[in-house]
Amino acid sequence: MSKTCIALDVGGTNIRAAIIDAQGKILQQHSYTAQLSQITGNQQEVEQQVIEHISANIEVLLGQGENIQHVGIGFPGFFDNQQGHLIASPNMPVIHNFDLSGQLSKKMNLTVSAQNDALCAAMGEFHYGVGQSSQSLMHITLGTGVGAGLVIQGQAYGGDRGMAMEFGHLRMAKTGDYCGCGNIACLETFASATAVLRRFNDHSQTSVRTAQEVYQLAKEGDALAKLILSEAGNYLGSAIAEASKLLDIKHISISGGLCGAWDMIYPYLRQSMEAALIPPMRNNIIVQQSSLGDDAGLLGAAALVNR
Amino acid sequence: MSKTCIALDVGGTNIRAAIIDAQGKILQQHSYTAQLSQITGNQQEVEQQVIEHISANIEVLLGQGENIQHVGIGFPGFFDNQQGHLIASPNMPVIHNFDLSGQLSKKMNLTVSAQNDALCAAMGEFHYGVGQSSQSLMHITLGTGVGAGLVIQGQAYGGDRGMAMEFGHLRMAKTGDYCGCGNIACLETFASATAVLRRFNDHSQTSVRTAQEVYQLAKEGDALAKLILSEAGNYLGSAIAEASKLLDIKHISISGGLCGAWDMIYPYLRQSMEAALIPPMRNNIIVQQSSLGDDAGLLGAAALVNR
Repeated sequence: MSKTCIALDVGGTNIRAAIIDAQGKILQQHSYTAQLSQITGNQQEVEQQVIEHISANIEVLLGQGENIQHVGIGFPGFFDNQQGHLIASPNMPVIHNFDLSGQLSKKMNLTVSAQNDALCAAMGEFHYGVGQSSQSLMHITLGTGVGAGLVIQGQAYGGDRGMAMEFGHLRMAKTGDYCGCGNIACLETFASATAVLRRFNDHSQTSVRTAQEVYQLAKEGDALAKLILSEAGNYLGSAIAEASKLLDIKHISISGGLCGAWDMIYPYLRQSMEAALIPPMRNNIIVQQSSLGDDAGLLGAAALVNR
Repeated sequence: MSKTCIALDVGGTNIRAAIIDAQGKILQQHSYTAQLSQITGNQQEVEQQVIEHISANIEVLLGQGENIQHVGIGFPGFFDNQQGHLIASPNMPVIHNFDLSGQLSKKMNLTVSAQNDALCAAMGEFHYGVGQSSQSLMHITLGTGVGAGLVIQGQAYGGDRGMAMEFGHLRMAKTGDYCGCGNIACLETFASATAVLRRFNDHSQTSVRTAQEVYQLAKEGDALAKLILSEAGNYLGSAIAEASKLLDIKHISISGGLCGAWDMIYPYLRQSMEAALIPPMRNNIIVQQSSLGDDAGLLGAAALVNR
């Protein structure tokens, strides 16, 4: 039986779907706009519409002629580690204990596996990207928020309730901006692409449109842009040090929009990380950009099937 | 073959040794003063003397008539997760990549397992204490320092290099006292029994002799003693929240000298922990005193043999 599969990376505004072979090669892919977080209705209605959106995407690829039996899905939310149910999805609050993979499997007569999207990205990087020769990997995404996933000895680590690696909500300071979670000064209020953009515009009272533009301004010598990127690096390094003191993972990969400013972030990240580590951990942690970039989530969804 | 074993809990000033049956019952025990950190010499000499101290303790118990084949040892330091060697031991800096269990095994013709002492305590609490019905457990000891160990789905978690769960070195503030690790304001500079005592004496310019006396003063209404204990609770709660956001472990047990002040620490711990968690984690983490107290390490060393 072929292990070529269909993989989906479900985001808040976009569903990406691909046919991927057992070696992690993307054979075909398409992207589909779907404002899942805008779906209204009661629990059953919302869950039904999510199934409709996802199955429509699978159908398109099934029509391409390959004899595909397996589907892997990365989806934003907390997955139960016993039954694989989606316990909750922060941007779709009515969803509760949703058997996403079971319902899709029944509807489509396929084997379906689903897991948290950030954890899928970590699995993708571990099996097909920079983590291929590592025993364990922590993977961080600096995008709209700051997401992270942990692979320990090849196994996706979800914690007791699928809520592990809420790395973007580590508390970095006593004061700062409010975070979407309701707390103040979470890492993602400093070190996401969104935060860098918002902080620059707030402090400069301008309307730059992307974090990449903030980076360009920093390259041209803008002191505020440089400060905001250095702070993103500093806080990210401190947060990695705190995570390292608990997890002792010696390989860390980073992807997401803010990696476009890597040369202005990394030196600060490294310096603040090393300073906060315990001495025997120093100069012994690899922190690098991911090699898969935006494909990590898709490939990790495929890894759910192939591992 | 009987799984009754000999277990050792090796500390900086004391070695505890016991005969323990497969159900975790301590049949016999003795305690032996040994200033291991005071041993001088080159690497080979120090390692040889450690072997001598430990084997002498094992011999005493072997002479008690039981037919014992297995020994489990909890020892302070970082253990390699592949070969089980003691990579380093902070208080015995000349030790390096020491095959403690292999050398003892050869010398005594017994099966010997060794693991980090804090991780043994977590294994003891998980298998024989309050963690018996949990899937995973984080165990914290508030003593001379702040130690911690993590058991995930019944498995001792050591990280890539045996350095996981350096929980006492999470950085809690920008300013504070220097920690033994060289950093400033680590959790253990606020929330160990030693720190509570030191902080009280420093600020009151008195010479109270134990953390328990600080607790007594707090009970009698001493404002400084109350503040220092409340700060220990606050920082401990914040640190548990940060660890929870990464690990998502819903059962946490605490032992060690500072538990004697539980009623003055726990309310602050709980409040600061809940405030710093992400909303879906709130009111859903059990934090309790351990049931094994000082025996957790010994029983965890026995669990190395029995699991």
